Amino acid sequence: MYLKFYDNPDESEYLPLLERSLCDDGSLRRCVSDIIENVRVRGDEALREYEERFDSSRLGSFHVTEKEFDEAEASVPRELKSAIERAYGNILAFHEAQKSNGECVETMKGVKCWRKVVPISKVGLYVPGGTAPLFSTVLMLAIPAKAAGCPSVTLATPAKEGTVNPAVLYCARLCGVDNVIKLGGAQAIAAMAYGTQSISKVDKIFGPGSRYVTFAKSIVSSFCAIDMLAGPSEVMVVCDKSSDPVYVACDLLSQAEHGCDSQVILMIRAGDGKEARDVYERIEQALSAQIGILGRHEYMLPSLSHSAAIAVYDDVKLMKIVNEYAPEHLILNCRNYHDLVHMVESAGSVFLGPYSPESAGDYASGTNHTLPTSAWAHSSSGVSLDSFVKKITVQELTKEGLSSLGGTIMRMAEAEDLMAHSQAVKVRLG
Amino acid sequence: MYLKFYDNPDESEYLPLLERSLCDDGSLRRCVSDIIENVRVRGDEALREYEERFDSSRLGSFHVTEKEFDEAEASVPRELKSAIERAYGNILAFHEAQKSNGECVETMKGVKCWRKVVPISKVGLYVPGGTAPLFSTVLMLAIPAKAAGCPSVTLATPAKEGTVNPAVLYCARLCGVDNVIKLGGAQAIAAMAYGTQSISKVDKIFGPGSRYVTFAKSIVSSFCAIDMLAGPSEVMVVCDKSSDPVYVACDLLSQAEHGCDSQVILMIRAGDGKEARDVYERIEQALSAQIGILGRHEYMLPSLSHSAAIAVYDDVKLMKIVNEYAPEHLILNCRNYHDLVHMVESAGSVFLGPYSPESAGDYASGTNHTLPTSAWAHSSSGVSLDSFVKKITVQELTKEGLSSLGGTIMRMAEAEDLMAHSQAVKVRLG
Repeated sequence: MYLKFYDNPDESEYLPLLERSLCDDGSLRRCVSDIIENVRVRGDEALREYEERFDSSRLGSFHVTEKEFDEAEASVPRELKSAIERAYGNILAFHEAQKSNGECVETMKGVKCWRKVVPISKVGLYVPGGTAPLFSTVLMLAIPAKAAGCPSVTLATPAKEGTVNPAVLYCARLCGVDNVIKLGGAQAIAAMAYGTQSISKVDKIFGPGSRYVTFAKSIVSSFCAIDMLAGPSEVMVVCDKSSDPVYVACDLLSQAEHGCDSQVILMIRAGDGKEARDVYERIEQALSAQIGILGRHEYMLPSLSHSAAIAVYDDVKLMKIVNEYAPEHLILNCRNYHDLVHMVESAGSVFLGPYSPESAGDYASGTNHTLPTSAWAHSSSGVSLDSFVKKITVQELTKEGLSSLGGTIMRMAEAEDLMAHSQAVKVRLG
Repeated sequence: MYLKFYDNPDESEYLPLLERSLCDDGSLRRCVSDIIENVRVRGDEALREYEERFDSSRLGSFHVTEKEFDEAEASVPRELKSAIERAYGNILAFHEAQKSNGECVETMKGVKCWRKVVPISKVGLYVPGGTAPLFSTVLMLAIPAKAAGCPSVTLATPAKEGTVNPAVLYCARLCGVDNVIKLGGAQAIAAMAYGTQSISKVDKIFGPGSRYVTFAKSIVSSFCAIDMLAGPSEVMVVCDKSSDPVYVACDLLSQAEHGCDSQVILMIRAGDGKEARDVYERIEQALSAQIGILGRHEYMLPSLSHSAAIAVYDDVKLMKIVNEYAPEHLILNCRNYHDLVHMVESAGSVFLGPYSPESAGDYASGTNHTLPTSAWAHSSSGVSLDSFVKKITVQELTKEGLSSLGGTIMRMAEAEDLMAHSQAVKVRLG
């Protein structure tokens, strides 16, 4: 048995299953605070020490050179390049469609208000090294940054023994990243948030990472914008007796292989307990068979051990649980998915029907894979073009416009006891 | 002399003038942390104690009753009601125009990606009491919340001796706020972030407030979304010899009257030093005359004392300083404002020409007055309809779509060493 089975649980039983483990670890927080403070005060010198300690690299410069880019490009296999370019095209197309010029409204005659859309000048992207070289994250962050028109895009990524993964560099160059720096962990976040002698301060920091990186983003967020606080990755898969159990099993495993703390939840929509149990058992068999074929058991098995299968017998309860959980990834692989998608209120990204595995969105369909985890989908969206722009409101009133609106402004200002606000109108209409 | 005059300063001289005072006060932070922890653990009991201590109120219930709404409505003067209704219409029109249905892109044949726009379920709005009863803030937060379709809108505001300002209640009812609770300060933020026996937890907290409120928002932001961290209010006014000095003076003062820590910066675009000095002196005279007429000197004078007038002799340098400062409010009241607005990269809201005082946007033109301060305009926008919605990405691939894209996905997944991601495609195409 891989997933523990819960048959139509009530709220008191299922709510605890939906909880994410909070890891506000005091010693981790102190360690990260120290790193940040050290980088703030000592700059490059501190960075050099950390790189030597954590990544065994002695860096002359943090900046990747053109020669390194060329060598990386030469070493990425042709087939992988084509795959990356196809993904690039789809991701660009989806994010380009998110562009907006801002709307202009004449709220009254002579009172024109609009929004001017401006890219953020300097953005910093963090791309983790970790258990797998995540070059896809380069695409997911750098494509919208450049599509938005950000003039300065810096990318920080750890360089084990001084070397950055070639596919990461290939993607960075393809996307037009301006500057790649060899830095990982909390020290990379601190360097981008404060700036050092050799690294420019950025206006906003994006990207996933270890708990160190997330803590660091949390700390600097009181003075530097961040995209979101990313926790462990999650998927919720909704299936029924019509779903192919092998598809379901592979979708669950493709989340579980991310890391020990990944969470997968299987929702079984059934007519009754017998049907639910039957679906569950077929998926368990498929899990067993697939685990036999696949590796990364050191991540998959711990991850599955704190995951669950929940059977429910009506759509309202099903979607209540889905929206309560607010999964990062939601796969609706069941008969009536076209109806259910209208009932989705909280999720990062939704995958519909039998032929939309999460991996499509992780890599290449066009949507972004930088998504809200840990129930942040209740309030937040994934990264999009919007994340890289500011919308500045602008207004122009004519004398006529101010004449019509002036009485309203003055009355409200005076009722708030702000007489200079009123006076600014009065002197113009005098 | 009200504003200190700087004639064409170089960077080393003007950068310090643009700095905002940071107030990361350790004792304040500890006090706010204690309040938050107390509310989290003891709920309503803690809230009652704070209300008694800070607002001299002994509350039976925190919730404003229908009777209180009726009484408030009866006591707001008819003329103020009309003014509020006109502002309501303009603000609604501007924010309604920001609605979007999300775009749908078929990135390849059989690969359809779109965004589903969903309002945030439960939002909490904070409306400060403080030196002036800010009912306009109710309009600025509740109108976009309701226009976005948020089903549950809670508003917290301090009740001095148990009573909420009638105009605040009138606006709340007009906007369709679901629930007004009598609570101010850090304890109000804590109550909305965690929920208590009688107050529901919200998904996102909006609104300005004292330093206590801002610290509280900063602390809870590691688990509850917030709109922004608001510092003291600011205006930058750009003028030249064509500007009416009285208009300029009143705009400066309408910022300065907000509070002792408000910052006003006057930029004088001139042809030479003599012209700059001349413009400066006329504005100083106008300031003197207007201060003589207006009250709230206890806020205005300290605020002006840490403000500045900066003369520059070319547009490039002018706009460099403007964008470096990233003012919450930017008034371009000079001859060539139509050219300059295209050079604005960082500002909260921009006011163009001689007839667009900041007070128009503060109250009634339609734009939002909840704006990024303290140079957050480098990375962030003011509150808009977007602040109250989530954009959930959705995708549906047909079997044909997955066949075309499958090779790309598998190649990338395998290069990232994530074989289950690849397997999820392979089993579907087998």
